[in-house]
This record gives sequence, structure tokens and C-alpha cells, in this order.
Amino acid sequence: MEQQTRPELEKIARLIRYYILTMTTSAGSGHPTSSLSAVELMAGLLFGGSFRYDLDQPGHPNNDRLIFSKGHASPLFYSLWALAGKVTEHDLLTYRRFESRLEGHPTVSFPYTEAATGSLGQGLAIGVGMALNAKLDKLSHRTYVLLGDSEMTEGSQWESIQIAAHYQLDNLIGVLDVNRLGQRGATMYGHDLEAYGQRISAFGWKTITIDGHNLDEVLTAYGEAMESVYRPVMIIARTVKGKGVSQVEDQNGWHGKTLEKDDLLKALGEIGDVDKRVQGVITRPEDKRPVEISPAEAQPLQYERGSSVSTRNAYGNALRRLYPAFPAIVSLDGEVSNSTMAEYFRNDHPDRFFEMYVAEQNMAGAALGFACRGKIPFVSTFAAFMSRAYDQIRMSQYSDGNIKFVGSHAGVSIGQDGPSQMGLEDIAFFRTIHKGVVLYPCDAVSTEKIVEAAAVHRGLVYIRTTRGGTPVIYDQEENFPIGGCKVLRQSAEDRVTVVGAGVTLHEALAAYDELSRENILIRVIDLYSIKPLDEETLREAAQVTDVMLVVEDHYPEGGMAEAVRTALWEARVPVVSLAVRRKPKSGTPEELLNFEEISRGAIVARVRKLIE
Amino acid sequence: MEQQTRPELEKIARLIRYYILTMTTSAGSGHPTSSLSAVELMAGLLFGGSFRYDLDQPGHPNNDRLIFSKGHASPLFYSLWALAGKVTEHDLLTYRRFESRLEGHPTVSFPYTEAATGSLGQGLAIGVGMALNAKLDKLSHRTYVLLGDSEMTEGSQWESIQIAAHYQLDNLIGVLDVNRLGQRGATMYGHDLEAYGQRISAFGWKTITIDGHNLDEVLTAYGEAMESVYRPVMIIARTVKGKGVSQVEDQNGWHGKTLEKDDLLKALGEIGDVDKRVQGVITRPEDKRPVEISPAEAQPLQYERGSSVSTRNAYGNALRRLYPAFPAIVSLDGEVSNSTMAEYFRNDHPDRFFEMYVAEQNMAGAALGFACRGKIPFVSTFAAFMSRAYDQIRMSQYSDGNIKFVGSHAGVSIGQDGPSQMGLEDIAFFRTIHKGVVLYPCDAVSTEKIVEAAAVHRGLVYIRTTRGGTPVIYDQEENFPIGGCKVLRQSAEDRVTVVGAGVTLHEALAAYDELSRENILIRVIDLYSIKPLDEETLREAAQVTDVMLVVEDHYPEGGMAEAVRTALWEARVPVVSLAVRRKPKSGTPEELLNFEEISRGAIVARVRKLIE
Repeated sequence: MEQQTRPELEKIARLIRYYILTMTTSAGSGHPTSSLSAVELMAGLLFGGSFRYDLDQPGHPNNDRLIFSKGHASPLFYSLWALAGKVTEHDLLTYRRFESRLEGHPTVSFPYTEAATGSLGQGLAIGVGMALNAKLDKLSHRTYVLLGDSEMTEGSQWESIQIAAHYQLDNLIGVLDVNRLGQRGATMYGHDLEAYGQRISAFGWKTITIDGHNLDEVLTAYGEAMESVYRPVMIIARTVKGKGVSQVEDQNGWHGKTLEKDDLLKALGEIGDVDKRVQGVITRPEDKRPVEISPAEAQPLQYERGSSVSTRNAYGNALRRLYPAFPAIVSLDGEVSNSTMAEYFRNDHPDRFFEMYVAEQNMAGAALGFACRGKIPFVSTFAAFMSRAYDQIRMSQYSDGNIKFVGSHAGVSIGQDGPSQMGLEDIAFFRTIHKGVVLYPCDAVSTEKIVEAAAVHRGLVYIRTTRGGTPVIYDQEENFPIGGCKVLRQSAEDRVTVVGAGVTLHEALAAYDELSRENILIRVIDLYSIKPLDEETLREAAQVTDVMLVVEDHYPEGGMAEAVRTALWEARVPVVSLAVRRKPKSGTPEELLNFEEISRGAIVARVRKLIE
Repeated sequence: MEQQTRPELEKIARLIRYYILTMTTSAGSGHPTSSLSAVELMAGLLFGGSFRYDLDQPGHPNNDRLIFSKGHASPLFYSLWALAGKVTEHDLLTYRRFESRLEGHPTVSFPYTEAATGSLGQGLAIGVGMALNAKLDKLSHRTYVLLGDSEMTEGSQWESIQIAAHYQLDNLIGVLDVNRLGQRGATMYGHDLEAYGQRISAFGWKTITIDGHNLDEVLTAYGEAMESVYRPVMIIARTVKGKGVSQVEDQNGWHGKTLEKDDLLKALGEIGDVDKRVQGVITRPEDKRPVEISPAEAQPLQYERGSSVSTRNAYGNALRRLYPAFPAIVSLDGEVSNSTMAEYFRNDHPDRFFEMYVAEQNMAGAALGFACRGKIPFVSTFAAFMSRAYDQIRMSQYSDGNIKFVGSHAGVSIGQDGPSQMGLEDIAFFRTIHKGVVLYPCDAVSTEKIVEAAAVHRGLVYIRTTRGGTPVIYDQEENFPIGGCKVLRQSAEDRVTVVGAGVTLHEALAAYDELSRENILIRVIDLYSIKPLDEETLREAAQVTDVMLVVEDHYPEGGMAEAVRTALWEARVPVVSLAVRRKPKSGTPEELLNFEEISRGAIVARVRKLIE
């Protein structure tokens, strides 16, 4: 273990303060005071001998991981890597500029960022995922998370704290920078370190309380933290916001504000002489790598055409069946694995299944942690409860997260449980994800193929599954590429194109049967890939039928109809929407499909009206 | 205080069990076992003398409030009101049927439901809002929340626990039904009551641990709870899931399952003889009502045309200015009141401003609690961080919540802080809310008028505000009704209609100036009301210009362009979209508007191309 001397560390801290102040004043925005409070905490971690990292291999599987949950302390973050020799002073002065990789809050455009942060209360969950991954892969590295005191009010923190203790993550170390001040004033507990200590230790963590500006205490704390067995550790540090600059130290009104040029000069005077040649030395990690699991062929599908299988069942089966071909798969579920059917995977691969309990925010964050470490996490809960983690999901797009979210029990077709359990806005939300993929299978075969396509695809994928059974309509050989669709009924005489997916696809097929008995022909398209869309096939259909009818078990806004309207914006063809327009309630699936006018009967009626 | 005798309460509990079992078997779905565990807890509360409620006036301001956070225990909930004489046995047997007001999870179609629940971990936040409201209005009633043990893993619970202690809500009483089993198996802490006690008391609550099936202990606990001063109280009760039915008692695999008819008969035999004439008696509340504050006229607006004011500033000012006219207004903010500018209101009306810290889920839930008690809550944070509370917001539509959400710092135009702070999916989400309203002002005058319209409107409203200053373009006399829009530039020679809102409206106006110098005329529409939309005006414009160009500082999906496409679905007019299509980053607002091609320059270029 290479460890720098105390005077060297003091020099390093001084230079970091110099960088923080100059880069933020140069940028004209940023958070110098929130950075200054954690200088000793972070310098002591990276250069005090505890932290192990191969600077030339940021992806080394046994590198310690450092996540800045308080992402606004990015000036400190970038300065640390400057001290490590990986960022130049010139780079630092590009901070927050359009052409710079040093963004206002860390993103993955900077190679030493583990995950993008900046929405508070998310870093610890990501750390939980990385720490779980290290346990799974039997790696000795640790995961460190720098936390702000303000963000401790986020419930997500307590989800992570609770799960970390439950899984005995003694390889997870939180560093809580208690600088007393939030954005608009004092935090809830101010400098009452005991308040944090009590709460966190009540959840089963080891806590160590220190003066966060005393390097000896900082170094001792990391040493102690590394010795914890079975318990995650929180280092709770009393710090001073703006430490080192008397003008702003412990002052309210200085959050997210930079020093004017004159004040900067005064502040730099207080910091004292800096030696820009000083270098931080980071201990290299043990050269440990996870055991490689070679992919093997997955068992073939076994569905009988016409048999009734719910897509959620097919999802569970697909995950279990495909695992040999995708040994990077892990499964996380929010205490509903017997509904999402992730339990099939859990039963076969208990070590790769993570019960995340009813705590969706931490689940999504932990999934990102797994994804950052090369796993393919499949995350399942009811589609409705995915909304609990929308901020985490939103943020994971900025980390290029390779995560597969699977929302079951979508739409009013769940029936009696009522609106609280119905996912009716999930397509709208997931469609907004930059380069995100939204898939919605209607039968067991397409579900299995879609799960496979999702595992292959690198990026954020959402798969929507259905509670009730639906008939298997596809042959096992059929393929379902992302961005495709299936034209299931067509002729040159088609009058209307009906676009469905999931349950409504079956309603559309039934409507076809009824209408064809009256010699009214409709084209039926299974829009299993809602984003991206098969624009070409839709345009072809629009040319033939001159009117499109999109039927979806979702609210009208942001769903399939709007996706189709967007795809056909140039086609000058009317796109009619049947969607959930009345406040949903309890009832049988059939009653609700009729009530919302997305049933076979409603489709037949609308088609008749359209061709009048 | 009317209190029923111990034998009467036992009779009541027996009849409640009878109802729970018969109604769920009759429905064929529902959660009998989760209901059975809390029978004594709830019978003891309602009919044991503690609870005060005027059955003929559910809206009485001094009624005690009871929220079933574990909404799936609805069979118990409805049975309680049956015992109180407000639901017939015949009603109970309509449970979960399409025509019934007794939905699978409680909704406000049943008059004794305080707020719809069913997504776990939300009831306590609603209770926090009601308890805060009682303190504000100096009412003596208490708020009781029945909690499940599974849902204690939701971070939202800890947000509420923490805030309730912070505000010393000794009028808030949680009843934690620790029945050990979640949906798919044991909970994290099983029957370890101490685990809950430690954690909850570490946050500053008084905790009382009891046997939840022992009526004496239950009654004593409520008595003790009522004596708490300054501290909220959690009654932590050891219970048995399925209590009273040996076949299912404490058994895994019985969550959300009903008894078959044969098993029901056996179970009813175990319950023993029931006396259907038994009635629960509820103590009436003190006839206390809040002091009425008479509305007074608001001060007039004072903006100079052409001056630069950010819409977030105008929001803060509007709230402060309008309060006399809307004395039901309260303001809740997530520790960013100096950014959302809710601080203007806080400074003038500190007693009606509630600092909710960085805990958006509890903030949204508490807002619903206020709304249920007749207040008009304005809830502010960054648009991006609203996503933290999407599940709570989603659920509040099923409570007919009269809440105004105000998201600031929308879009890439915030600049240097980067994507983590940019709300780019908020319009898509809020548009999905059933009967929801989405407003997006572009200047200070329209903001003020829009805040007023939101205060008048009963229902869920989202207002999107902008970080940077924008010129005042409207006269003080202009009105901005919900569902309207403003045609700011028009002539008979218009070639393209450009639709903007917020920052992009100003870009559109600048593009107009540039293009008109070349004698290219465009129509410019301020789409300040995105939902509902002024379809008629858009259709008129579409007839004149034959092409629409929608420019928005939002992702392309679910935003303004799709809203316009939906409004114009019959018009056969191409709707071109300029929106945020590249992964956003840090930079100046101007750089980012250009990068995303939503700037004046991009509009000019696209218009030129469209008329080629």
C-alpha cells in the first residue's frame, strides 16, 4: 500500500482547493463551497493509501469505485483526477464549457465517472449495485460513495441503507459530508452528527464519526472502515462548507455560487502557496478478475400455437431459458417476483437473483451499478410501480445504462385490482428516454424473442407485459427485431389499418374476424416495437388504407397513437386513437376493455364508422 | 367518549372477519389475509373510543382521518364502515365489481376514503399533509394511517417519518401491522418488532409495541398515543396474516388469494357465530372548524413590457401576490425555494410555507393531504426532480387531487448545470394525467395569469417555468384561460405556422423578425396551454399555412409536437417537430439551443427548407 506522507497530503489538499476555486470562477458557475468541504475526505481517500485503482485501466474489474452522489461537487471530483495526473490544469479551466468533457455534474463523457449524478440521493443505490456485483464476482474491491447531508432526506437513501445492511455489504463505504448547509439554508439536522449516526446505525451500519478536515482522523476512519465485517460503513464527517475561504466558510447564500475575480485572489492568498508539481499516488488494485462464464446455447422454445400463456409468464421463462446464452444476466425484482414471474429465474439461479423488496428507487439505481460493471440487469415490477423510479431511470440514460426494465400488469386489462395497480403512463415515460427502446409483446413467443433481443441490445430497454393469458399466435421460428412490426392480416382491399400491441392486438384480430364476416377487410399490425418504430411498414399501410386506427391499453397521451402519428407525420393520413379515456376502475378485464372502448367491439364499431 | 365494551368489540371483530371472508370469496379476488391481520387494530381504533368522526359529515373538518396506506386491505376498510352502518352487507358483496363503489383498492368513489391508495408507501405522506393542515388550522383532530410491514421498505416512508418528526406532528399516529409476510414471502425483518422500533424511534417518533390481536393492548396503545406531545406515534403491532383462519394463518402463498367456497365454510365455522345486528359506535368529533379567511383583492401586476424577468421569478411573485384572493393557498417546496422562487411566498407567509427538504415523494403526498382538506397546495421543485414523485402524482389523480405542481429549470436552456438538472420529459408525463392541465408560460405576465387560472381550476395542474430571464411580451390586461393559445404574428400570407412555448416562443419571435426581413411571413403561436389544447385555433392556422412547425425545449416524445399532432389528427397537415434530439450536455443556453436545433437560427433554417 503506497501512502503519501501527511505533509504531501496537505500539499495535495491545498492544490485541490486552488483548482476548485480557479476552475469555478473561470466557469462563472458551479459549486465551489460544496466541493471545499470534502477536500480532505476525498484527498485522504484517493491518496491516503486506502483506494486502489489502475489509472490506465478505468474498467479494471477490481478497481475500487468512487461515486460522487453529491454530483455538484464536480470541481472536487475533477481536481482529484487532475492530482492523479489524468486531467490537466488546462482541462480544468474548460469546466462547464460546451466543448469540455468536464460537465457541470459528472457524466460518463469523463472516463473516470462511474455513473452520472446530479439528481440527489442516487449514488448510494448505484454503489449498492456495484458492491453486490463485487460479492457476486468474488472481487475484493470496495465501493465508496461521497454523500451530501442535504440528500440524506431523500427516501431513496434509506432504501439503499436498508438493502446494503440486509445484504451485509461490508465492501460499501459511504462518506457523509455534513457541511450543515443545503441549497437554501440549514439542513434538517445541521451539524448534529449524532442524528445521522443514530439513524444510520439503527439500520445496521457501522458508523464512524470524525472531523472531516482532520487528515489523521480521515485516514484512521478509512482504515477502520476497511476492517468492517458483514456491515456497510458510513463515515460521518463534520465539515465546513466553503472550508479554507473565510469569506464563504459556513455562510448561507453561497451554495452554487462562484467567487468574483477579486475575491478569488484574496481566497487564493488564504489557501497559500501551491506546488503544481505535487502528484497524488494511487495504490494499484490486486489483479483479480471475475471467473469468465462461457455462453452456452439456450434451450429452444416450447409453446403450442393457440395455447393461452400470459406474457409475464413467458418473460419469466425467457429469463431462465436464455441465461446460459447471456451469462451476464442478473435479475432484480421489487418483491413481486411471483407476479412478474421473475421467480422462474430466481428458482433456477438464486445467486443471480436479487430480491430488492418494495423499494423501486434503490432497485433501479442498483441495476445501474450492475450495468456499469458489465452485467445485464433485468429489473421487474408492476408497470405502474416503475413510476416510482422514473428519476433514477431518467438519470441512467446519462450513464449509458445497459438496463432492461420489465413492467408487468400493464393497462386496465388487469381488471379487479383497480387503477392504482394499472400502468397507464409507462409507454409515454419510457418513450422519452434518449435512444431508449420500448417493446410490447402480445404472446409468449414474441415475448421470448423480445427478451432475447433486449439482452443483445446495448442500452435502455423497456418491456411491457400483461397479467392475463393470451393465445400464442406466432411460430417459434418468427423473429422480432427491435424496430420491426408484424402485419398479421392484409389484402389489397383493406379499408382501415388497425394497429395494436399486447392485449389490444388480440382485440384487433377478433375485430378482423367479425368484420371479415361482413366482407369488411382491415389490415392488422402488431406494433410490438413502439420505439423505434417500423415507419416504413406503417407508411405502406397508410398508403393502402388511408386511415389508421391505433388501439392501446394506455392513456392517449404519449402512447402508441402518438408514436404512430409521429411516424406518419408526413403521410397526411388520419390516425385515429382508441385509448384509455375514462377514469379507470375495478371490474373484469372484459368490462374494462369495453368501458374504455379498446375492446374488439369498440374496434368493430369504430371501423364501421370510419368507412361510412 | 363512547366506548364499546370488550365483548362488543369481540363481536365486532368476528363480524368483520366474516365480512372480509365472504366478500372476497364472492369477488373471487382480493386480499383477505392482509385484512384479517389488522382486524383488532382497526376495530379497536374506530369503535374503541379513540376515533372521532361524524358519519353524516365525512367532510367535517374536525373528523379524525383514517388512511389505509396498505390499500389492499380494502375488505377490512369497507367492513369497518359496514359496522359503522354506512355500508350494507349487500354492498359488500358487490366488492370489486364493475358497478360497485367498493373498488379493489380504495378510491374516492367511496365517500369514506380519504385518499386513493394501493401503490404502497404513500399513505403516511398523505397523513403528514393532513396533520400539518390540522396544525395550521388549529384543529384538534388526529390522523391515523394503517401501514403494512412490507411497505416500510419504501424510501417514501422514511421521508414521511423524518418530516413528521421534524414538524413535531403529535397528531399523526401510524399503526404498523407487522404480519411478517409480504407478497412473495417473508418481509425483510419478519416478526422482529424491535427492528422497526429501533429505526422509527431513531427518527424521533414515540413507538409503542403491542400484540395486535390483543384488544386490551390495542386500546391501551391508542390511549397512550393520544397523550404524545411533540412526537408522532407509531404503534408497532405483532400480527398474524390470515388471523382466525387456520388454513391460511401465517402461511406463505396466501397473499392476494381468496378462499374457495368449501374452504370458506370451514373458515366461517372457525370464526364462530356472528351477530349481524351488532353495530360499531363512533364518537362524534368536537364541533371545531377552522377560522375562515375571507378572500381579498390581489394587488395588480407591475411588469414593464420589454423588461427581462424569468418565469420562475414571476411564479414566486404570483403566489405571494395572489394569496389574499386565494387564502386556501399553501406552498410546499423541496429545498430549492431560492431557485423555484417560492421563497417570495415563504418570506411573506411563513406559516403557510412548508419546507419539505429534498424529499419529493413525501412532498407530493403531503400536498395531496392538504388538498383533501380543502387547501390549494402549490408544490415546487426543479421540473427534473418532479420525476421523483411521479408515482405519487399518478396516484393523486385517483383522489381527484386539487394540486398545482410547478417545475422550474425546464429544458436544456438551463445551460451549464447539465442534463441531470434538465426537465426534458415532464410534459410527456404530466400530459398523461387524466383530466390534467399542463401550462407553460413564456413571460412574466402570462405566468402570473396562469398561476391565477391554476388556483381557480379544481384539479391537477402542472406549470413549467424557465430558469433564465425572458422579455415581458404581454400587456397586463391579457388573459390566459386554460385551453387557450395566443396568435402573436399572423397575416394572410403566412407560409408556416411556428408553435412555441416558454423559451422557444421567444426563439420563434426572433425567427419571425429575421424571416420577415426577407418577406417570408410565418404565423407564431404561443401554446401556453399544452393540455387542454386550443384545437380550433391550431386548425385555423393549419388551413392557412399547410405546414406546422412545433419547437420545444423537451424530448420529442409526448411533448408539444405530439400534442399538436393529436389535435390536428384530422387536418391532414404535416406537423414538423424541432425538439431535444441529441443527448444534452453542459454549455451556455445559447449553445445548447443551437446544438439541439431549437434556436431562432434552427427555426429560420427549417422554415426556409419547408417552403423551398
